[in-house]
Amino acid sequence: VGTQYAGFQSQPGKKVVQTTLERAISATTQEDIRVVGAGRTDAGAHAYSQVVTFSTDSILPVTVLVRAINAHLPRDIVVARATEIDPSFHPRHDATSRLYRYLIWNRPVRSPFWEARAAHVRPRLQVETMDEAAKCLLGLHDFSAFAPVNAIIERTRVMYAASCRRDGDLVTLDFEAQGFMRQMARALAGTLLGVGLGKITLEEFEHILQSGDRTQAGETMPAYGLYLVRVKYPATKSISEGVVSVGSPHAGNEEQE
Amino acid sequence: VGTQYAGFQSQPGKKVVQTTLERAISATTQEDIRVVGAGRTDAGAHAYSQVVTFSTDSILPVTVLVRAINAHLPRDIVVARATEIDPSFHPRHDATSRLYRYLIWNRPVRSPFWEARAAHVRPRLQVETMDEAAKCLLGLHDFSAFAPVNAIIERTRVMYAASCRRDGDLVTLDFEAQGFMRQMARALAGTLLGVGLGKITLEEFEHILQSGDRTQAGETMPAYGLYLVRVKYPATKSISEGVVSVGSPHAGNEEQE
Repeated sequence: VGTQYAGFQSQPGKKVVQTTLERAISATTQEDIRVVGAGRTDAGAHAYSQVVTFSTDSILPVTVLVRAINAHLPRDIVVARATEIDPSFHPRHDATSRLYRYLIWNRPVRSPFWEARAAHVRPRLQVETMDEAAKCLLGLHDFSAFAPVNAIIERTRVMYAASCRRDGDLVTLDFEAQGFMRQMARALAGTLLGVGLGKITLEEFEHILQSGDRTQAGETMPAYGLYLVRVKYPATKSISEGVVSVGSPHAGNEEQE
Repeated sequence: VGTQYAGFQSQPGKKVVQTTLERAISATTQEDIRVVGAGRTDAGAHAYSQVVTFSTDSILPVTVLVRAINAHLPRDIVVARATEIDPSFHPRHDATSRLYRYLIWNRPVRSPFWEARAAHVRPRLQVETMDEAAKCLLGLHDFSAFAPVNAIIERTRVMYAASCRRDGDLVTLDFEAQGFMRQMARALAGTLLGVGLGKITLEEFEHILQSGDRTQAGETMPAYGLYLVRVKYPATKSISEGVVSVGSPHAGNEEQE
């Protein structure tokens, strides 16, 4: 749960997930531990399942290690499982895709239960139209329209899956891509929101994507609605073979501990 | 969200939902407001939908009133909707049933997302057997086995619905009855937990219910897993005709504001 953190990656003077995790592992193994994560998260954003690696000379069995690290972690971070892995494995470089989820509480009155965990949008969203628009994102595209304006980076990405669905008053936007630029998922969510509100037509949405013009796209949605749900690796470097997972899905069916 | 409160009902020197709500309404109408609630909740327990009434001389339209009261409420309480109602209506006495829900996060590792919102049980629960046991509760019973030991009260209640189900790692226990005694839902949850863990057989569960012996039943589960989901009224005194609802369901489809 990212509410109390200024993101995953270390920033001087700020409370971040990475440092909190490093301290808990260091306290357990009595070493000076540095962790490498699969993806950054923005301040206030959440992760059901982050993947991190670290090197240790500890001879503790991994199940004992997990329990000891969790005893040193605050209640809003948990290590779901851990295994030993080849030192050549890199949680960020080896990842083949990331699944980001954006949650919107879509009801005139706010929800105390989704406070700081979903964006609040009062007017009823046309989720079917949003889902149609999301399908335009599939495949290889230059995502400049949803990228930070001044960053000199490659902006071409492959989007494997994109969908919008409603479950009662909760609207879920899923984006699974090979890689994401900073605030890209939140800019995609903001532009699809425009579609759901009837402010942007399907044709306009396609045009925005093709234009590569950030000023035409929608607002960047607040970080507290954003979740890193899953990071995928090639089968030969399967996540189940050896990494630490931070956070825990609401209702997953994966192997555990 | 009840985490920060010592329950619904006023207690001297404690932060309770009732007083917080009375202050917000008083600030809105500039009167000294007293509210009456449909049901008490224990310290730390939650309510998706509480029903309260109050008298006011305010001439503000109810939709304006709701917005103004919400502006005075903290982020963990919300008035979902309000309407005018006959002064003879009493939210507790007129209620025909209450639905209480108990949530269990059932995975070896704890969940940061369900922290203070569900009980954590590590061993995998036999939910089908729990559901079978829950069915024994249906109908008219003396629920002394799940009642406070020393209270001199009528302990016979009608249970309209009782079920246990699994959704991934989350186990949901629902109890809908005409009325509940203090800690009854949490004692029922604790005893069904014994069934799910294989410590209490179906026959033993039936025997516990019939015995009326509180010492034979399971532990009282922690309050933070308990939710007041719904309060029902006779059609002639329908909730949609005029009461204030505190809290908001995760994914409801009711009429709103």
